[in-house]
Amino acid sequence: MNLRIPGPTPCPPEVLQAMTQQMINHRGPEFAKLLEKTTANLQSFFQTKEDVLILTTAGSGGLESAVVNTLSPGDKVLAVTVGVFGDRFAQIAEAYGADVTRLKFTMGGAADPVEVRRALAADPSVKAVLLTQNETSTGVTNDMKALCSVIKEFDKLLLVDAVSGLAAIDLPVDAWNCDVVVAGSQKSWMIPPGLAMVSVSKKAWDAAAKAKMSRFYFDYGSAKKYLERGQTPFTPAVSLFYALDAALALMEQEGLASIFARHVKMGQYTRDGVRSLGLELFADPRYASNTVTAVKVPDGVDGKALTKVMREQFGIVLAGGQASLEGKIFRIGHLGYVSTKDIDDVMSALPHALRAAGSGRAEAVKTTGS
Amino acid sequence: MNLRIPGPTPCPPEVLQAMTQQMINHRGPEFAKLLEKTTANLQSFFQTKEDVLILTTAGSGGLESAVVNTLSPGDKVLAVTVGVFGDRFAQIAEAYGADVTRLKFTMGGAADPVEVRRALAADPSVKAVLLTQNETSTGVTNDMKALCSVIKEFDKLLLVDAVSGLAAIDLPVDAWNCDVVVAGSQKSWMIPPGLAMVSVSKKAWDAAAKAKMSRFYFDYGSAKKYLERGQTPFTPAVSLFYALDAALALMEQEGLASIFARHVKMGQYTRDGVRSLGLELFADPRYASNTVTAVKVPDGVDGKALTKVMREQFGIVLAGGQASLEGKIFRIGHLGYVSTKDIDDVMSALPHALRAAGSGRAEAVKTTGS
Repeated sequence: MNLRIPGPTPCPPEVLQAMTQQMINHRGPEFAKLLEKTTANLQSFFQTKEDVLILTTAGSGGLESAVVNTLSPGDKVLAVTVGVFGDRFAQIAEAYGADVTRLKFTMGGAADPVEVRRALAADPSVKAVLLTQNETSTGVTNDMKALCSVIKEFDKLLLVDAVSGLAAIDLPVDAWNCDVVVAGSQKSWMIPPGLAMVSVSKKAWDAAAKAKMSRFYFDYGSAKKYLERGQTPFTPAVSLFYALDAALALMEQEGLASIFARHVKMGQYTRDGVRSLGLELFADPRYASNTVTAVKVPDGVDGKALTKVMREQFGIVLAGGQASLEGKIFRIGHLGYVSTKDIDDVMSALPHALRAAGSGRAEAVKTTGS
Repeated sequence: MNLRIPGPTPCPPEVLQAMTQQMINHRGPEFAKLLEKTTANLQSFFQTKEDVLILTTAGSGGLESAVVNTLSPGDKVLAVTVGVFGDRFAQIAEAYGADVTRLKFTMGGAADPVEVRRALAADPSVKAVLLTQNETSTGVTNDMKALCSVIKEFDKLLLVDAVSGLAAIDLPVDAWNCDVVVAGSQKSWMIPPGLAMVSVSKKAWDAAAKAKMSRFYFDYGSAKKYLERGQTPFTPAVSLFYALDAALALMEQEGLASIFARHVKMGQYTRDGVRSLGLELFADPRYASNTVTAVKVPDGVDGKALTKVMREQFGIVLAGGQASLEGKIFRIGHLGYVSTKDIDDVMSALPHALRAAGSGRAEAVKTTGS
């Protein structure tokens, strides 16, 4: 299978092999070494000198951790959203009692720094801003440099969902004053899902000291306390730490600048391929993501049938549209462990699948196997 | 290494091998099949016809999920605790605003059903009872049949921490009226940490409909909604699902009754071995756990040095004592993937290690390598 969804991404053989290592004591010296090493390596990929914590949870658990560790019920929060995952971040804050104002931008577009400045100027009581680096549902990357700079002007606490972008698309966490940045293992890190990694700035620690939202499993304070003795508060997903260690070794070898450059190239390559087939890109080209490309389903084509034919006839797994975009777009993931050959295969198969998924012809193709 | 801690337990080769399988789409048909199959298999090992949900988190996240899905801030909770993990369950409920009364029993002893009845009779406003099946910190298994029966008399909501006992020590979830039962992947299931499995009774669902504690990532309602379409709300730890599937196949082959019998035998074998060395068991023998045995560190022996010598000289990893028991006991795990040979090796090494760790002779042993 050519797994072309925006995460989980395929894992390199070194990563899969690493997971065959036997279990160890998570309170012993071997795990302490592994935790210290992976944490230090992550700091360099986060481009931060601040704390990085590794939590055993999905990316959304990481987002929850950012909210509950820094906020109190009733706190005013500005949620800047450009899609499904921006909305989710807002929902999490609401679920824990924050007073959330959504600043929603059109799906397929990016957040406008001017609008963000206006919103922050209009309401000085806002305590924190929720922001998405890379919106997986629409294939949009926000102009983080400009947005972070505006939020810095107002000295707000900045919580960033970088789950599908970090270590693929440049986000210098310290230089751009991000207070909590959340990454997810199954994305550019090329390992299976199950770990969320978060960076925590001094400002975020100050907020944590006063934050009153209920938390236990996701508490940063205990994570840091345990990290200082080479442990995690709760039993960590040991096999995923093996995988992470192996993946970070590969990433170090390649170097962060090369990784970014590779994703720029893969993004361009994918968009060029899509356009060459006469298909329309969904995202505003100025903000098109280099980890995932959203493509409009052409008129007369059944979006669901399209991904089905791609999977069943060509062994290529694409992602459909989420929420209001269901059936309207399909998405091609090109982050982490991916080659131009993988994208070539998508582009070769697409014309056939589009024909098959147009005018109800999917079944005919299935029968003849053409 | 002979990993003899009460979790993570060693994984059978089939389980480690299963994790080398490449990633799949967690919203596609392959994962749906995997989720449906593992869920159905877990139901039989939980001995329940009710819902079983699989969460990507550690066991403690599973405990948190039980609390936040069924309770509201201010709810009166009776936390029956016989050790560190009973205390943790109580702390979680407190962290989310429950009004918790602790019914604490001596470390090494079990919970007394008579005392539990007295506590419930004394305070009719108690809504839920927190109970530990098998207390990992002391090596004690509670008399769950008697305790569950008392709690049923009073018709309370019963939340059970069965993380280190389920599928090793009999706990017929439906027959004994347990409302939420939490298990952890790295215990008797013989797979790496990272998944918590929970059963949810009808009564627990009724409670969930009214429960006001803040929750998002751990919400049972969305887990169930997604399960119905063969998905999880958030990206699941796919490689651990592969591992679980492989382990459940092994467990099915062995059969639940045989698994219980094997643990009874391993528990007895371990306790006999300990006693034959003239060492003293920590737990009340009537409630000694069949998954983990706690042993008193003899006078004149340095508990920390003992586990160090066992690890460094003999390649055997034991667990120390936790909290107030640090240095006073050591613990031998014998759950999941373990053989009598593994225990024999512990018993052969112990006399040497005890001598080495007595009177500061650990260093000498280390130097000579004897």
